[in-house]
Amino acid sequence: MNASTHYRTHNCGELTEKDIDKEVIICGWVAKVRDFGGLTFVDIRDRYGITQLAFNIETNEALCLKARGLGREYVVQAKGKVIERSNKNKNIATGDIEIEVNDLQILNESITPPFTIENDTDGGEELRMKYRYLDIRRPILNERLVTRAKVIKAMRAYLDERNFTEIETPVLIKSTPEGARDFLVPSRMQPGNFYALPQSPQILKQLLMVAGMDRYYQVVKCYRDEDFRGDRQPEFTQLDCEMSFVNQEDVLQTFEGLTKYVFKEIKNIDLPDIIRLPYADAIKYYGSDKPDLRFDCKIIDIDALDAIKNNTFPLFQNASSAKHIVAAIVAKGCVAMSRKQTDELVDYVKMPNRGLSGLIQVKVNEDGTIKSTIDKFMNEVQLQEIVQAVQAEKGDLILIAVEKESKVRKALGDLRLELAKKQNWIDKDKWSLLWIVDFPLFELDEETGAIIFVHHPFCNIHPDDVAYFDSDPLKCRAQQYDLVINGAECLSGSIRIHNKELQDKVFQKLGFSEAEKDERFGFMVNAFQYGAPPHGGCAFGVDRWVALLTGADVIRDVIAFPKNNSGRDLMMDAPSVVDPKQLKELGINIQ
Amino acid sequence: MNASTHYRTHNCGELTEKDIDKEVIICGWVAKVRDFGGLTFVDIRDRYGITQLAFNIETNEALCLKARGLGREYVVQAKGKVIERSNKNKNIATGDIEIEVNDLQILNESITPPFTIENDTDGGEELRMKYRYLDIRRPILNERLVTRAKVIKAMRAYLDERNFTEIETPVLIKSTPEGARDFLVPSRMQPGNFYALPQSPQILKQLLMVAGMDRYYQVVKCYRDEDFRGDRQPEFTQLDCEMSFVNQEDVLQTFEGLTKYVFKEIKNIDLPDIIRLPYADAIKYYGSDKPDLRFDCKIIDIDALDAIKNNTFPLFQNASSAKHIVAAIVAKGCVAMSRKQTDELVDYVKMPNRGLSGLIQVKVNEDGTIKSTIDKFMNEVQLQEIVQAVQAEKGDLILIAVEKESKVRKALGDLRLELAKKQNWIDKDKWSLLWIVDFPLFELDEETGAIIFVHHPFCNIHPDDVAYFDSDPLKCRAQQYDLVINGAECLSGSIRIHNKELQDKVFQKLGFSEAEKDERFGFMVNAFQYGAPPHGGCAFGVDRWVALLTGADVIRDVIAFPKNNSGRDLMMDAPSVVDPKQLKELGINIQ
Repeated sequence: MNASTHYRTHNCGELTEKDIDKEVIICGWVAKVRDFGGLTFVDIRDRYGITQLAFNIETNEALCLKARGLGREYVVQAKGKVIERSNKNKNIATGDIEIEVNDLQILNESITPPFTIENDTDGGEELRMKYRYLDIRRPILNERLVTRAKVIKAMRAYLDERNFTEIETPVLIKSTPEGARDFLVPSRMQPGNFYALPQSPQILKQLLMVAGMDRYYQVVKCYRDEDFRGDRQPEFTQLDCEMSFVNQEDVLQTFEGLTKYVFKEIKNIDLPDIIRLPYADAIKYYGSDKPDLRFDCKIIDIDALDAIKNNTFPLFQNASSAKHIVAAIVAKGCVAMSRKQTDELVDYVKMPNRGLSGLIQVKVNEDGTIKSTIDKFMNEVQLQEIVQAVQAEKGDLILIAVEKESKVRKALGDLRLELAKKQNWIDKDKWSLLWIVDFPLFELDEETGAIIFVHHPFCNIHPDDVAYFDSDPLKCRAQQYDLVINGAECLSGSIRIHNKELQDKVFQKLGFSEAEKDERFGFMVNAFQYGAPPHGGCAFGVDRWVALLTGADVIRDVIAFPKNNSGRDLMMDAPSVVDPKQLKELGINIQ
Repeated sequence: MNASTHYRTHNCGELTEKDIDKEVIICGWVAKVRDFGGLTFVDIRDRYGITQLAFNIETNEALCLKARGLGREYVVQAKGKVIERSNKNKNIATGDIEIEVNDLQILNESITPPFTIENDTDGGEELRMKYRYLDIRRPILNERLVTRAKVIKAMRAYLDERNFTEIETPVLIKSTPEGARDFLVPSRMQPGNFYALPQSPQILKQLLMVAGMDRYYQVVKCYRDEDFRGDRQPEFTQLDCEMSFVNQEDVLQTFEGLTKYVFKEIKNIDLPDIIRLPYADAIKYYGSDKPDLRFDCKIIDIDALDAIKNNTFPLFQNASSAKHIVAAIVAKGCVAMSRKQTDELVDYVKMPNRGLSGLIQVKVNEDGTIKSTIDKFMNEVQLQEIVQAVQAEKGDLILIAVEKESKVRKALGDLRLELAKKQNWIDKDKWSLLWIVDFPLFELDEETGAIIFVHHPFCNIHPDDVAYFDSDPLKCRAQQYDLVINGAECLSGSIRIHNKELQDKVFQKLGFSEAEKDERFGFMVNAFQYGAPPHGGCAFGVDRWVALLTGADVIRDVIAFPKNNSGRDLMMDAPSVVDPKQLKELGINIQ
């Protein structure tokens, strides 16, 4: 290749009718070779699209035979003239044209790939992760990575416009485990000492506020050495933000603005204002601090109804003394469910992590009659009262739970999601965004009975609840907020404590000894003596955002080289054993 | 603070004459309190600037006394009216106005900072690193961090415009040590196994090309566990780029364009085209592959002169048989150097890392006479011949070295830099940018005599040198290029090998066994079987770039939370000992 010539003049996605008669050079991967006797067509692909190359055995036999010999995924360079296609393909951007090739170079060959490189592939996930460089050739996956870059670019554009400065915080930091386990990095120069990888830049960004940087953001990798369950990765990406001289309202407005901006840029959707739901209401009505509101189906408390209070059904009778509540959800249009289907729902709420003893069912039949699973204890008036209270209509199935409040809320909250999935209640084109506000500051550790923080120990108290801090700390709300999109937590943040005395009191309340506080957070508490400004911020889960915006089911699908559920990179085969010499230098042994 | 009121209406850098009579609220840190009897002035500072608050004891005694009680670095909120200053300060943007304060809130107090928070501070570097959150309040430092963000933003803007996609590569990868030592991360879930932190995303970005992503970039942290000498950090930031279907010329043009764009955006400088210097010439004329061309002072070979060849001075006579060369540099205008000064230069080249035996000096006096330190062996004609050959003028000092070529080049190359520093030859407003091209592909390891790679084992051979690969590999140039700015390597890159057979041959030439190759690079070589496109790229040293563009002496000054030369974070006190429980979970012991 001559240094002054380019490999290509165009990519595989850009030639259209307006380019007809141009002499072009394009490069790409062979997607398909079709041979029709005299004519041979080769589709070549790059990340921009697919272009058809045409060869004619009459015009140039040698070239046409060369084309016929191309294998899948060969890398080729073709020179020729853009001509109009006789058989147009309206499904692709380049479908009106093809290239009448007069020179074809094979830039690289390929052995047969282990799975087909198409959106609808025959490769299983483990195989595709091992050959991730082939998996990414599938248009759906490379488009997701491109969209990911666009999402992050939009986030940056919005923040840059508003005086935020992107600042990199260090990755080799001090181990201050909170919540999750730290990944550790042995220090060779200080044997026996370790760096930790940050679970988040929380403390560092707060120090940037103490440093007067005023508005900070960073798209940053964070690390948690957790047992991977569900859709987690040991390393994940946050958009981490912090602002000085702000109250909660300022922060919510700033990041609601960012959210709207991203939806407009990426999906061309004009979001309405985002509703706010206090944490207590989210739990009460949806049994979750991240409810999916793309469908309704609220939890309705029915303890106070005569039909329940004055009912002889033992579960109802004992509810009050057992500190149980009685609550219901309405499964819209589910009256015709089979016994098998309703049994599945009952089994679902009886699973150990939900722990209900069962569900009382009330059917509002299409003919207006009402039947319940405890008809012995229910007369027509009582049934009517319940139906009216929960606003059920003909065709609905009412599901009633009786248990301790936390169990009922959780189980019915889960059940509404399960019903939505099974009954296809969710309109895939619909978006549900909401702010959850007024989280509790503290909660009780169920195992130890100790007071622990809900978010992190730096959250400020809700200004209306300061008075309870000493007398009834569990009653204190925090200035904390989450943004929930389609039932997934996509942002979490808070106004932070900026006062050293209050921070000390919180550490004390959480049971940190002076020594422990100094060891873990000494440099931070120390910094707060030198004029920390009021500040607050949040972190967006970038992987989750991109998954939502691209319709990916799991965050693995929006990460170039993800790890599997055991934390392994199947392509690189990491983690792996290392040379004992390396360990010796680090001053560590394997146990 | 009421949730619906904002902390401030303006920052400390934006109020000017056009705001006179406005009611404003501003927040900031107390920089200075000046008390003039009836009037008290308080300067408050944030990262945008400084604004003067005015208090009058006559108008509001309590408020004025409150202002007088403010300590340095208190955080305050002031409400009042913008008025014209009687005593204007033309040096600052807000110098025409002050604020007639009618309400002052202390948002936070501060104890006395350990050093003055001004550009010209009294704090030593270690102290400032410990209190980095105070150090960053100094305008010069926070401006550098803001410029850093702007540099990176400009880089991204240029690349986004040209179809590059920013893609995050993983940080927990496989250990494949090359060149430097890897930082390791023990895996808890696979005890005895380790992740490594990337020294660069080299292999991963090449796999993204195999994956068809076409054009990739990433602003990414890289990690090297080296003994920190000079201006190095264990974690540093690269702008990492890669392109498919390109030759060296395409890459140079793309990144020369980026360089010009950044200089225009950040410094408003229109750079001329960047000159290209072959590696061999850089070594020959400047004794360095990163010459600083802000001043001239080339190394001139004078072996061939009669004055040398036919000279009876033993060093000259034996040069040829000892395989020594004779070369000179001209110290412009240095004829008047004292004996002490020239002795220092001689000592400088005699230091063990340079290893010359001395310097022969030839003085071209202002009166036209020529004197040398070996006048016994030099007649007028010979001296004149040398003076003419090196184009010395009246007032110049010629410094001649005789030794093995590599030592002479290195020593005289260092000496020209040393002279430039001592003699203030460097115009601080001048920029020297150049491409070094045609690096050698291989070199000999001086200790073992083995063939080793110069850049990395993935560099492609120069197309003109393919024939030497088997017969004379050390003669092969690589398609490798560095961008040197003011004598600092600011970018390094190459066209990569994309052919599996050639890559295998290179690994073989480098002495990798099949097993070793499979273990370390197996997944990469494997990938190359599936249609790797021709590709190449580069990485910019972001820290170095920002240091150059902001006039910082060391990269620590453009990093928010840097480590010191022992790899310690003095603020956080990391690395540190960790809870033995953590080590137990990771399955490791300290030796």
